[in-house]
Amino acid sequence: MTIKSEFIRGFPDDEFVVRTQRAQNMMRKQSIDALLLMSETEFTYFTGFQSNFWQSPTRPWFLIIPSAGKPVAVIPSIGENAISASWIGDVRVWASPNPQDEGISLLTTTLKEFATTHKRIGVLMGFETHLRMPANDVDKLRLALGSIDLTDATDIIRNLRMVKSEREIGKHVFVCDLVSSAYENVPNLIRAGMSERETMHTYRMDVLSRGVDSVPYIIATAAPEGSDDAIRYPSDRAMAEGDVLFIDTGAEIDGYYSDFDRNFAIGRASDATRRAYELVYRATDAGIKAVRPGARTCDIWKAMADVLGMSEATGGGVGRMGHGVGLRNTEWPSIMPTDETVLCAGMVLAIEPGIDFAPGKMMLHEENVVVRENGAQLITRRAAPEIPII
Amino acid sequence: MTIKSEFIRGFPDDEFVVRTQRAQNMMRKQSIDALLLMSETEFTYFTGFQSNFWQSPTRPWFLIIPSAGKPVAVIPSIGENAISASWIGDVRVWASPNPQDEGISLLTTTLKEFATTHKRIGVLMGFETHLRMPANDVDKLRLALGSIDLTDATDIIRNLRMVKSEREIGKHVFVCDLVSSAYENVPNLIRAGMSERETMHTYRMDVLSRGVDSVPYIIATAAPEGSDDAIRYPSDRAMAEGDVLFIDTGAEIDGYYSDFDRNFAIGRASDATRRAYELVYRATDAGIKAVRPGARTCDIWKAMADVLGMSEATGGGVGRMGHGVGLRNTEWPSIMPTDETVLCAGMVLAIEPGIDFAPGKMMLHEENVVVRENGAQLITRRAAPEIPII
Repeated sequence: MTIKSEFIRGFPDDEFVVRTQRAQNMMRKQSIDALLLMSETEFTYFTGFQSNFWQSPTRPWFLIIPSAGKPVAVIPSIGENAISASWIGDVRVWASPNPQDEGISLLTTTLKEFATTHKRIGVLMGFETHLRMPANDVDKLRLALGSIDLTDATDIIRNLRMVKSEREIGKHVFVCDLVSSAYENVPNLIRAGMSERETMHTYRMDVLSRGVDSVPYIIATAAPEGSDDAIRYPSDRAMAEGDVLFIDTGAEIDGYYSDFDRNFAIGRASDATRRAYELVYRATDAGIKAVRPGARTCDIWKAMADVLGMSEATGGGVGRMGHGVGLRNTEWPSIMPTDETVLCAGMVLAIEPGIDFAPGKMMLHEENVVVRENGAQLITRRAAPEIPII
Repeated sequence: MTIKSEFIRGFPDDEFVVRTQRAQNMMRKQSIDALLLMSETEFTYFTGFQSNFWQSPTRPWFLIIPSAGKPVAVIPSIGENAISASWIGDVRVWASPNPQDEGISLLTTTLKEFATTHKRIGVLMGFETHLRMPANDVDKLRLALGSIDLTDATDIIRNLRMVKSEREIGKHVFVCDLVSSAYENVPNLIRAGMSERETMHTYRMDVLSRGVDSVPYIIATAAPEGSDDAIRYPSDRAMAEGDVLFIDTGAEIDGYYSDFDRNFAIGRASDATRRAYELVYRATDAGIKAVRPGARTCDIWKAMADVLGMSEATGGGVGRMGHGVGLRNTEWPSIMPTDETVLCAGMVLAIEPGIDFAPGKMMLHEENVVVRENGAQLITRRAAPEIPII
């Protein structure tokens, strides 16, 4: 374990108090009595609760942000002990599993207690969200709530989570540093003849050994001159001279992610590969340079697209050239021509330009930055300006 | 990498053909024109497609099972190349992200093409499921489909996925063998003075080094005489003599999970700890012995509850004493008094009895079995009959 001793886990309670009060201020403006949240990220964000138990899809968990005071948890009894260690005081449990009443009656009673003024409860219904509970139970809950409405509150959570505190940024900086070191070590670990699957395994072990908590997202794809795909599973094909290996990593420590990639040429790089690499490298520079408070995500996109000679009509399968990073590897906003999110200090972004430079050959670069008052703070160690040969 | 050479990845196409035809037979009986699926597990089950890209919550993916023929994918363009390598032929893509129309118009057109007879589309709305798409888009889709109804088809997918083929069972057997070896190695790796967090890290590295693909689920909790919690995150407290360390592992290879736990005494075990361990060990034996085709999940529960001296009214926070295992670490059915699922050959189960033997001290055991014609086939290497001391 090489976790640097200075890494501080968790947050003092006042971090959660501030997050909760900010949510409550926005709720007030929208005449929302309470928020009903149910995803891992929202539990972590408002309570600090973390558990691998989210991997089990059996039981729903509910968190209520009332108009004032601390969050209230309505959860399966298996979680009572663990969440009671968090800063919130009010934890209500039901014996789960119980398919006949999977917390719905307890949830209804609790929500009715808090939704007395406007009779409106905010729920995540928008882009990049989903309700982590059975659809039948959503209908059941709506019926049981009677005159109390469920209304979309995605903008509240989006606006909150997009802007990070200095403590949150510190965790992003930490994990990006560890993954930067792992990428720099790739030439020592990976060689021609290894398969993509062996490459992914070897690289994952190296990243974990540096002290991240987990690496839920790794892509390792290789093909002659340029990788053929940004998301497919690794194959058992042996990598050969002339291949380009693409690695993308979503690692996290204490819940906070890095999300950036690297490209490596196996043995040698063709002129076409070198040119594509250097073009996308320059586009990344342009994207980083365009980041400043007040700029819009579409402006960042355009700065990169101009370098790449790209019009809005083109742009390949990825569909955007960057996004937010936080408690998930990809979060709001999207860096694309139709997104006009105004950047502000404290956002953490993946700057991710890419091109298909020949049929089936892609070149995709990615760095993570923090939006600061005076521009971008690069928190990944910049990729080499020419494609590294291993 | 110690993956045994005999492990065969993926499935021949006829495995997917059979799964699809079985779904279609059940759809016919329920007058359902098509299934609309959207989760990682369903994509893997019907297409073989696997990708870490499911970690990114940004884009929904849709899979349609028509009344005849192969599944049809309606997905973001970033996935086109990867899923086109699967056995399905019909892949329709949209440029994503696109919050204004995140695939909904393409999905609507496609569904209308297939829902011509009964005008009924089956969707997962029941227990242990959720819709992996924005709730606003569910409403949009319902509206766009007009007279075509969305109806709950959870029972079709549940009935299919609960019963494994021999090829699927082979993958479960493989991963359970690797994790069994890792558990047997714990006394060589873990010692008093290490924290839970170090323990989890060291153990995870060992499991991964044995050749599993990933270990999304690990719990490592320790407390004097018995662990205090089955799901909480590890702490930095140093484990001391007299602690009981509880480790639970959900590891997967090629998508198929193991899910079983082990308990270890650090330095010494109290009489209360030994007695609790041996009682729950005997309950596990009784649970395994009760497994046979025709038995109900509640019968398995009762066989264990009788050993533990447990009535239906008690039973602790876990809420059940076992469950199915498959493409997730926990799946249908639940082993509990109110579940009357009839076991049949080919099911893979976690047998998981537990007690709270003193305030804040739990004892939870777990083994994985395959239901065979003549009873349970144990696919984990049975825990030691007395608590191992390390």
